[in-house]
Amino acid sequence: MAAQFITTLRVEFADTDMAGIIHFANYYRYMEEAEHAFFRSLDLSIMQPQPDGSVIGWPRVSASCSFEAPAYFEDLLEVRLNVVRKGVKSLNYEIEFWRGETRLAHGRLKTVCCICRAGQPLESIVIAGEYADKIVEWFDPAEGNL
Amino acid sequence: MAAQFITTLRVEFADTDMAGIIHFANYYRYMEEAEHAFFRSLDLSIMQPQPDGSVIGWPRVSASCSFEAPAYFEDLLEVRLNVVRKGVKSLNYEIEFWRGETRLAHGRLKTVCCICRAGQPLESIVIAGEYADKIVEWFDPAEGNL
Amino acid sequence: MAAQFITTLRVEFADTDMAGIIHFANYYRYMEEAEHAFFRSLDLSIMQPQPDGSVIGWPRVSASCSFEAPAYFEDLLEVRLNVVRKGVKSLNYEIEFWRGETRLAHGRLKTVCCICRAGQPLESIVIAGEYADKIVEWFDPAEGNL
Amino acid sequence: MAAQFITTLRVEFADTDMAGIIHFANYYRYMEEAEHAFFRSLDLSIMQPQPDGSVIGWPRVSASCSFEAPAYFEDLLEVRLNVVRKGVKSLNYEIEFWRGETRLAHGRLKTVCCICRAGQPLESIVIAGEYADKIVEWFDPAEGNL
Repeated sequence: MAAQFITTLRVEFADTDMAGIIHFANYYRYMEEAEHAFFRSLDLSIMQPQPDGSVIGWPRVSASCSFEAPAYFEDLLEVRLNVVRKGVKSLNYEIEFWRGETRLAHGRLKTVCCICRAGQPLESIVIAGEYADKIVEWFDPAEGNL
Repeated sequence: MAAQFITTLRVEFADTDMAGIIHFANYYRYMEEAEHAFFRSLDLSIMQPQPDGSVIGWPRVSASCSFEAPAYFEDLLEVRLNVVRKGVKSLNYEIEFWRGETRLAHGRLKTVCCICRAGQPLESIVIAGEYADKIVEWFDPAEGNL
Repeated sequence: MAAQFITTLRVEFADTDMAGIIHFANYYRYMEEAEHAFFRSLDLSIMQPQPDGSVIGWPRVSASCSFEAPAYFEDLLEVRLNVVRKGVKSLNYEIEFWRGETRLAHGRLKTVCCICRAGQPLESIVIAGEYADKIVEWFDPAEGNL
Repeated sequence: MAAQFITTLRVEFADTDMAGIIHFANYYRYMEEAEHAFFRSLDLSIMQPQPDGSVIGWPRVSASCSFEAPAYFEDLLEVRLNVVRKGVKSLNYEIEFWRGETRLAHGRLKTVCCICRAGQPLESIVIAGEYADKIVEWFDPAEGNL
């Protein structure tokens, strides 16, 4: 079975809105923060400078989130990230937000591996070896690409 | 045919990230800003206080966005909002972001009409008459609910 | 000597801007997050509901920050908070941001204790006992009010 | 007398917090947005690419703001910017936020002219001619440098 990466976050005051709950746009930030923490856990960074001065990055292709129950100021949320698809150039994540036994939200994030060279447009590339080798262990191809 | 609500926005410096482009999480804020400008254009507010002290609001059920081309600092974007579905209690929007002839992103936002009473959980309600009467003109039922 | 409250934070990608560094407006959020973590360390919350339905809060009177060196994506910052003045109704903090041996920024935050009653304007009050008792130990009057 | 640059902004829902008012950290973003609108009004940009590939920018040295009255969702604020000091390398602004006859906040922003070359630290420079010539008309040296 594919492994799951788990991290936690605190809902900060600035993330609430006048309805008294966390503003929905923050969940997309949180999803990305979980993705970056996942990369750090593998000794990777989402922005990986290369010897030739270029940088490998992971721009977002799409992101969605469904909101099931509100989160409040100072809630401590558990964020569960799964790599649900590893394409030739792309990675898809499913990310869930839990407070205790309650799932508050779940989202999907699709990213693509790109090389950024100064003054040139982003170019998508086959997932670089340094990423592929480490991420493959988090993904079980036998489960298929959901 | 259903009408389209159009507004514009300026990409601000704080909305960019170290990749030199607008950070993707801002698009969800922008979608909401377009929705609120649409409501204002109908003399409505997304937070409508009622005579009995309760407030009618429109929490988000889900939001998604696909990113097709980057936006840059000081870009002036045209935001095109369509009401694509009017349910009994919910409204769905499609929102596109254009810079000149280039579509940069397009998203979907699903909201539900709720009543908020102090100290009680949100309760979804049939879309209140003051909204329904004004929004119906923006939606052509003959097109079906996409 | 007055005690110092110390917390850490990670610079997230969304906090950077196109200049490649953390956007300055985030420091004000960070200062507040340190203040709230300080309150939590005393088993207090910045929003303390009262038995009569009102809420004691701490609106900001002013905030300033000086920027000495840039912070970058994924930097782990140490945030040092000192209560530098305890007035009858107000608290002043000094907050420093360090990365290793380098001070990156230092700010000041002035807050005032207020009671919020539904439908009424905020009213400043003498610092409530539950706060005063716990915060006094963090502040040494012998040092004077800086 | 020095001229005053005036712009307006709408308080968006995402800028509010659970206290029902605009969150204070947004004022620093707003101050910067006014500064950038001021530059655009002079056909300048805060990020000015140079023929040699470097970029002239204006990092913040410090920013402060005092909060006098709350701003609410959908408020339309008038933002008044004054250039209060033009140093050899730096510019200081005073920025006020008004809703009708009520001043809600006033802040100060100190910036310094810098040149950014790829892979090198920022270097402060004498205010470049293209800026100095246009900004001088907004500043009356006879008033002194406040």
